[in-house]
Amino acid sequence: MRIVDWADDAEGGPAVVLIDQRALPQRTDQLHLGTVDEVIDAVRSLAVRGAPSLGITGAYAVALAAHRHGTATPDARAAVRADAERIATARPTAVPLSLGARRALSALAGGPAAVLAEARAVAAEAAEVHAAAAGRAADEVLRHCGPGPVRALTICNTGPLATGAVGTALGAIVELHGRGALAEALACETRPLLQGARLTVWELARAGVPHRLCVDSAGPAAIANGLVDVVLAGADRIAANGDVANKIGTYMLACAAARSGVPFMIVAPEETIDPGTPTGADIVVEERPGDEVREHAGTPMTLPGTPVYNPAFDVTPAELVTAIVTESRAWAPSPAPSAPAPRTAAAPR
Amino acid sequence: MRIVDWADDAEGGPAVVLIDQRALPQRTDQLHLGTVDEVIDAVRSLAVRGAPSLGITGAYAVALAAHRHGTATPDARAAVRADAERIATARPTAVPLSLGARRALSALAGGPAAVLAEARAVAAEAAEVHAAAAGRAADEVLRHCGPGPVRALTICNTGPLATGAVGTALGAIVELHGRGALAEALACETRPLLQGARLTVWELARAGVPHRLCVDSAGPAAIANGLVDVVLAGADRIAANGDVANKIGTYMLACAAARSGVPFMIVAPEETIDPGTPTGADIVVEERPGDEVREHAGTPMTLPGTPVYNPAFDVTPAELVTAIVTESRAWAPSPAPSAPAPRTAAAPR
Repeated sequence: MRIVDWADDAEGGPAVVLIDQRALPQRTDQLHLGTVDEVIDAVRSLAVRGAPSLGITGAYAVALAAHRHGTATPDARAAVRADAERIATARPTAVPLSLGARRALSALAGGPAAVLAEARAVAAEAAEVHAAAAGRAADEVLRHCGPGPVRALTICNTGPLATGAVGTALGAIVELHGRGALAEALACETRPLLQGARLTVWELARAGVPHRLCVDSAGPAAIANGLVDVVLAGADRIAANGDVANKIGTYMLACAAARSGVPFMIVAPEETIDPGTPTGADIVVEERPGDEVREHAGTPMTLPGTPVYNPAFDVTPAELVTAIVTESRAWAPSPAPSAPAPRTAAAPR
Repeated sequence: MRIVDWADDAEGGPAVVLIDQRALPQRTDQLHLGTVDEVIDAVRSLAVRGAPSLGITGAYAVALAAHRHGTATPDARAAVRADAERIATARPTAVPLSLGARRALSALAGGPAAVLAEARAVAAEAAEVHAAAAGRAADEVLRHCGPGPVRALTICNTGPLATGAVGTALGAIVELHGRGALAEALACETRPLLQGARLTVWELARAGVPHRLCVDSAGPAAIANGLVDVVLAGADRIAANGDVANKIGTYMLACAAARSGVPFMIVAPEETIDPGTPTGADIVVEERPGDEVREHAGTPMTLPGTPVYNPAFDVTPAELVTAIVTESRAWAPSPAPSAPAPRTAAAPR
């Protein structure tokens, strides 16, 4: 079962087929989405999430638009283009969503079959790219940490569910496990939507990787307590200077890692690096609905109606990033050498 | 209604009476605890929590033991002493719990009425001490931040529920609000037990203080994004050198505050400073049951049986603490000056 797929033979016509990540780990439900509006709803409600999976979804959604509208007339092609624009902007921070949509759209002149073939190519290339990045990241971890076995801390979900294939940061963790070089994966639960507790733990258990779960705020403490050899995270968008937008909580892990001299690595496809975004200050961080924080599975966690600050992402400055590892390189974005943090009372504040 | 109180006239004899903090904010239930074992269960299950409230509870629990066993014979007094020792050690990190118990025990020779009078004095003095610390902390905030109005970030619960009276860090926030010098309180939800979402939000709403709630990992991001003028937290134990043990998550806020040059202040009674603990390395951090992380109100948050790392506290090194404010002083434990963090790419890592 693929995480994001195309179904030609669905009742009522072609459809984008997704595993509904909101229902995991309790249930494994498949969604058959026969309209672009349904796909956009699934994207906005996080039934599908993770930058690479969003890229594949964006590409298949444009293929769906091409099959629905046809491509024979200028009006039909304009309708596909309009749908592609709505798909591309369904979540503001996710670059791959728009890249996937635009790449599928680039085959519009060839007709619906060509658009679908381009979308399938997006999915196949993502799998190759992530496998390469994960393998390179595993090399980089062992280069920084010695032969291991290492204890790796991660946040959010960067495995097959997020990427459609082997995963980026979680792919590196599984790769380290496969090489016999992983002692433990420590997964931050990743409030508010618990992608770590629900999805990463599910994937680690399926892959047989030894792991523990912790609340997000215990991640920095685990680093300070010497329980972590490396922090591995994904990225939603990387600015040209190496500043990284990723799931809320990534920044606190980077702060703590820098303070304890623990390597902090980002694993992401090269396309996540956006040359049109000079620094993290140029990234608009999406604020999501307050109910995500106020409730869990319909159970209130606070007083009803409590005002909420709910940023989806934070920005980690390049100076805290040891390496950004992609399918083609390991890039240390900061000119500062990676030295252990000062631990004395005279440390800079 | 007091948070922790003594009832002479309870059915079945005297009792310690508590608001059950596990049921808030949905329900305001009172527990009547007629035996020392029931009080210890309430302490261990966090029906009562917060260092000062635990101190008052410890004192009343020893009064309960004195009323139950009597104090007329050596055997009876030995039984009270044995109960006091069990009470004092019911939670390993909480110094005031044992201080309250031992202080009530010091009146043992005077009989049960004397022990009870001593416990009542513990409660009355706590109220005075916290009011003094909260007022001094408000002064200190305005000294560091200018006349305000300030935006204050806090974690866990340090208000009346935690302290039995006005509160420490939250007392300072309410005091700033009373002086017209508070723009907003931002409350971290405080996973796993959500003392911020359940208790602090309830107290801020009751006090009419403008506030927002955020997931814990959004606290460091809020600091980096310039939304916070001061961080105010309580303490469970302070080492002689100024290292602070407090609720898990305090350390990440201190790291982020130091990096952004935002003052990070601890508000706590003087008795929280333990001269018998030279540094934070000497503090044993309690690990709590994994179900706290795996479930919320009976709803699973992850796969059943997932292994969990669940430290109750973390230790913030003195060098990250701008000031420790008690009823009698504002103490800057680190010799390093409080300068804004370096923000350039050449910053120390």
